[in-house]
Amino acid sequence: MDPVGRTRWAIAEGYIPAESTGELPEMQSHETACILNASDRNARVRLTVFFSDREPQGPYEVDVAPRRTRHVRFNELSAPAPIPRATDYSCLIESDVPIVVQHTRLDTRQTANALLSTMAYPV
Amino acid sequence: MDPVGRTRWAIAEGYIPAESTGELPEMQSHETACILNASDRNARVRLTVFFSDREPQGPYEVDVAPRRTRHVRFNELSAPAPIPRATDYSCLIESDVPIVVQHTRLDTRQTANALLSTMAYPV
Amino acid sequence: MDPVGRTRWAIAEGYIPAESTGELPEMQSHETACILNASDRNARVRLTVFFSDREPQGPYEVDVAPRRTRHVRFNELSAPAPIPRATDYSCLIESDVPIVVQHTRLDTRQTANALLSTMAYPV
Amino acid sequence: MDPVGRTRWAIAEGYIPAESTGELPEMQSHETACILNASDRNARVRLTVFFSDREPQGPYEVDVAPRRTRHVRFNELSAPAPIPRATDYSCLIESDVPIVVQHTRLDTRQTANALLSTMAYPV
Repeated sequence: MDPVGRTRWAIAEGYIPAESTGELPEMQSHETACILNASDRNARVRLTVFFSDREPQGPYEVDVAPRRTRHVRFNELSAPAPIPRATDYSCLIESDVPIVVQHTRLDTRQTANALLSTMAYPV
Repeated sequence: MDPVGRTRWAIAEGYIPAESTGELPEMQSHETACILNASDRNARVRLTVFFSDREPQGPYEVDVAPRRTRHVRFNELSAPAPIPRATDYSCLIESDVPIVVQHTRLDTRQTANALLSTMAYPV
Repeated sequence: MDPVGRTRWAIAEGYIPAESTGELPEMQSHETACILNASDRNARVRLTVFFSDREPQGPYEVDVAPRRTRHVRFNELSAPAPIPRATDYSCLIESDVPIVVQHTRLDTRQTANALLSTMAYPV
Repeated sequence: MDPVGRTRWAIAEGYIPAESTGELPEMQSHETACILNASDRNARVRLTVFFSDREPQGPYEVDVAPRRTRHVRFNELSAPAPIPRATDYSCLIESDVPIVVQHTRLDTRQTANALLSTMAYPV
């Protein structure tokens, strides 16, 4: 099978709302980079997070096993440091194996949730 | 007319919410792969679903007639097996004829619905 | 200036909700093809609408003046025939001048509105 | 590192809702062009806004520092003139350095917010 995806992706719009309404953890406001690795090799993925007022943070490293998806919650990234809430950021995603990346946010700050999603930009 | 679309598409973010609020079936939380076949030939489409913790499931096979659209609800796919609710997945879509694929979710877990949509990634 | 956009675009996910909540016409559930014509020539745009169970309908013809945007509401298309509500469709957009097309839906069926948007697919 | 992004982007769907519900400024209805400059050079970005019934307005000029993101709120653009509310527009974004642009709207006209987002179109 031909490779599925690319090895570099960018998400320009990043923001984790600081508040949530509804049952946790399901309805917690969060942001994800959903990664598909359709290949037969493990993907070692590195995320670099960019801010408006300081140097980039990272890389955050995650593995996506062969023929698996992994929906990475930015809320849960911790090393080298958590991503601050209510803060504008962007993200560059680099992989040693072609992957597909889609960006999604669940926002439950108000009394009913809102969603956004878009394919990340294949650099 | 030149072909409209591609023969392989990927959706990285898949998730069918387990709950719904509102009148069924219209307001049931669901996820769709909306497929346009603008060609003059039948499209035989195969969907393979990827999970985070086990081997891919499929292919699910659907036909899209010439000059027709088909909005495939992941909720309704049954053979070889239904897609579990409240579970992260991704989807690879392969067709023998060029098609266009757009991914949409309706989420009615809370008291007002949320929507997301994005073009799938043309592999 | 180099041309901005393409001459053929596709929207695979079309659906005009049949109901609305809130003040009309602003909060009426609707779907739009937002078209940017950044060129110095008039764009003659033809929309063809595809259904799940019958032959395509159209073309609907709209003009977008030079250096103008036009947000075409599918709700308001009337010739050759209105687009039925609560019905799955897709849309192919063809122009004699390069344009950019973005697809947006406002859904106010429930007590707070939902939105979706994605760039159309550049064929 | 290879350049990340392109130097021209388009957003076809622009609209700043005139009303908001919830705490300001966080929940104010707004629209943003989120810009990632992953390069090591300052990006001088020029935004030109297109309307349905008059000549384009701009350019609005913003700088995005090296290795920084900037989420530009259309609500806050003021020179050469503010962008009117409840008005259809489109936007062309040009940069002297490759960037990535994502378009997002927060709409709080009704009692719970709605969101939309999509990658801008890389011209």
